[in-house]
Amino acid sequence: MKKIINEPHAVVDELLEGMLLAHSDFLTGITDTRVVIEKEKRATVGLVSGGGSGHEPAHAGFVGDGMLRAAVLGEMFTSPTPDQIFEAIKASDTGHGVLLIVKNYTGDVMNFDMAKEMAEMEDIAVESVLVDDDIAVEDSTYTAGKRGVAGTVLVHKILGHYAREGKTLTELKELGERLTAHIDTLGVALTGATVPEVGKPGFTLAENEMEYGVGIHGEPGYRRSELKQSRAIANELVTKLMETKTDTKKIGLLVNGLGATPLQELYVFYRDVVHELKNYDVEIVFQKIGDFMTSIDMAGLSLTVIDLDSDTYQAALTSPVDVLNW
Amino acid sequence: MKKIINEPHAVVDELLEGMLLAHSDFLTGITDTRVVIEKEKRATVGLVSGGGSGHEPAHAGFVGDGMLRAAVLGEMFTSPTPDQIFEAIKASDTGHGVLLIVKNYTGDVMNFDMAKEMAEMEDIAVESVLVDDDIAVEDSTYTAGKRGVAGTVLVHKILGHYAREGKTLTELKELGERLTAHIDTLGVALTGATVPEVGKPGFTLAENEMEYGVGIHGEPGYRRSELKQSRAIANELVTKLMETKTDTKKIGLLVNGLGATPLQELYVFYRDVVHELKNYDVEIVFQKIGDFMTSIDMAGLSLTVIDLDSDTYQAALTSPVDVLNW
Repeated sequence: MKKIINEPHAVVDELLEGMLLAHSDFLTGITDTRVVIEKEKRATVGLVSGGGSGHEPAHAGFVGDGMLRAAVLGEMFTSPTPDQIFEAIKASDTGHGVLLIVKNYTGDVMNFDMAKEMAEMEDIAVESVLVDDDIAVEDSTYTAGKRGVAGTVLVHKILGHYAREGKTLTELKELGERLTAHIDTLGVALTGATVPEVGKPGFTLAENEMEYGVGIHGEPGYRRSELKQSRAIANELVTKLMETKTDTKKIGLLVNGLGATPLQELYVFYRDVVHELKNYDVEIVFQKIGDFMTSIDMAGLSLTVIDLDSDTYQAALTSPVDVLNW
Repeated sequence: MKKIINEPHAVVDELLEGMLLAHSDFLTGITDTRVVIEKEKRATVGLVSGGGSGHEPAHAGFVGDGMLRAAVLGEMFTSPTPDQIFEAIKASDTGHGVLLIVKNYTGDVMNFDMAKEMAEMEDIAVESVLVDDDIAVEDSTYTAGKRGVAGTVLVHKILGHYAREGKTLTELKELGERLTAHIDTLGVALTGATVPEVGKPGFTLAENEMEYGVGIHGEPGYRRSELKQSRAIANELVTKLMETKTDTKKIGLLVNGLGATPLQELYVFYRDVVHELKNYDVEIVFQKIGDFMTSIDMAGLSLTVIDLDSDTYQAALTSPVDVLNW
C-alpha cells in the first residue's frame, strides 16, 4: 500500500481536520463528531448528505451555498452512525426542516432512518430522498435494489438549487423523488480500491483486465473483460444507459473519475461518449468532467446520464454555487 | 499500462477534442493546431502559457476570464512547437500585446523564444516570464537552472488578475519577474508516470520506496527513501521550503496532486503542513488543495509556498475567475 497518510485508522479524522483547517472561511465542524457544515445557513430547508468516507470530494466538497448544508463522514466505506447524522440534522435545521439525501446502501438507509426518527422525536421535520442511480446490478454486496453512486452529486446540485430558491421540505422531497428516476450511472474499474486499514485492494484485476459495472466500494460488476479502448467502453456504457431513454431529447452527462484516473483520460472518454451519442436523437445540454464521487484510489470512471427534457433541471444544474468541488 | 484511451499516439488530440466539445460555451480551438483559447477576450494584454501535455488541468483548465487567454498543448511531456505558440500569440493579441508564461525547460524556453521572435516580426508586442519554482535540484534532465512546476499556476492566477485589471504588457512583465522570486515548490513521488506512447513508467520505485524532489516529467529528485508518513514528508518539505523565508510573515500554500493521488491524501498532508508551520512565525492567508499541475498518472504531490507579505498578491489570488479548474 503506497499512500501519503499517517496511521491508517486516523485518515478520516485527519482529512476532516485538513479540510476544516483549509476552508474555515465558510465551513466548520461539530465538536466530537465528523460533520462538515456551512457556517452561514442561507437556504431555508437544510440539505444533509453523507456516507462512508473514501468518496472525496463527496460529500463534504459539496457543502456550501446552493448545494448541501452539511455532510456526515462515516468511517472508510462505512455508513455514518445514527448519532452522527442526528447531530448534523440538529445543526442544520433552522425551523424549516431538513432533507436527507441518502445513497442506497443497507447501512446508510438504516442509519439515516434512525437519525430521522431521533430528530422527529425532537420535533424537527425531516424527509429523505434515496438515490439508486447505478444500473449495473440489482441487490449488490451492501445493497437491496440498485446502488447509489455519482448521480447523487446531481441530486445535491438540483435540490440544493431549489432549497436556495425557497421550496418547502415537502416540495423538495417530491422533486427529489421525481428527479432520481431520471438519473442513471454505470462505471468501469481498471484497479481495485485500497482501504487504508485493510492495506490491500478490495479486488484485483490482471494487467490486461477491466470490469464493467463495479460499485464505488468495489462491489462486483456485471462482466470482466480484457482491457478495452475508450471508444469501446463508451459504446457499451452509452448503449446500456440510453436503453431506457428512448423518448428523451435532451440529456446531461457527468464523467466521473474514481480517484486515480488522470483528467486526460476523462476527456478522451468524454470525446468518445459524444461521438457515440451521435447515434441517438439527443442533444447534450449539460456536462461535467472530473472527480466527484471517487472510490479512494480506484482507477476507472463512471458515466451518468440525466434526462433534461425538463428545462427546470437544466437551470438548476447551471446556477452558480459556492462549494469546493462542483 | 492500464489507461482508458484509444491509440496511444492520439491521446493529446482526443483530450483536446473532448475538452473543446465539453466547454464550447467559452473555449474554442485554432484550426490545424493544438491551442485552447477563450472566446471572449476581456483583458487587454493576453496571457499565453502551455507546455507538454500530461499536466492536466494545466494549462488549458486555466483559460478564461481572470487567468489565461490561451494554452498551447505540446505532445506528451514535450514542448509545443514555435509554430503552435506563434498561432496562439496571433490569436491572443488584441493590439495590447501578449505575455508568455513559460516553465523553465530547455525546449520550452527555446520554442517560446522563437515564437516571440516570429510575432515581433509581425509587429506584435510580446514579453515573457519564466517560472522556475522547483527548489529540488539545479540543472535537471531537461532544464538549465531550476524546473518550473506547480507554482506556475499561481503565476497564471496573479498575472491574470492584473491583466484583467488593465495593467500594461511592461507592467505585467515586471510584476511577473518580481512574483516568481516569491514562489517555491517541492514534490514527492510514490510512483513514476506512464507516457501512453512509451507504455511503462519513466522510473520505478519499490513498494516501500518514495523519492523526494521528483520533477513533473519524472526527472530525478534529490533523495530516495523508504516510504514515510505524511507528517514526516510535511516536515521535510516545509523545512526546505521555509529555509529562504526567514523574514516572511504571511504565506499562501498550494497542495497539488500529481495525477493519481486521492483527494483524501492531499487533505491529510495539508493538515500535517499546517501543524508543521506552527514552528514558524507565519500566518497562512491563502490555500488551495487539489490537482493543478499533474504528471499524468504519477502518485505523489507537491507543496508550493508563496510569500504573501505583499497584500496585492493575496487579493489577486482570491479574486473570482471563470475557468475550469482553479
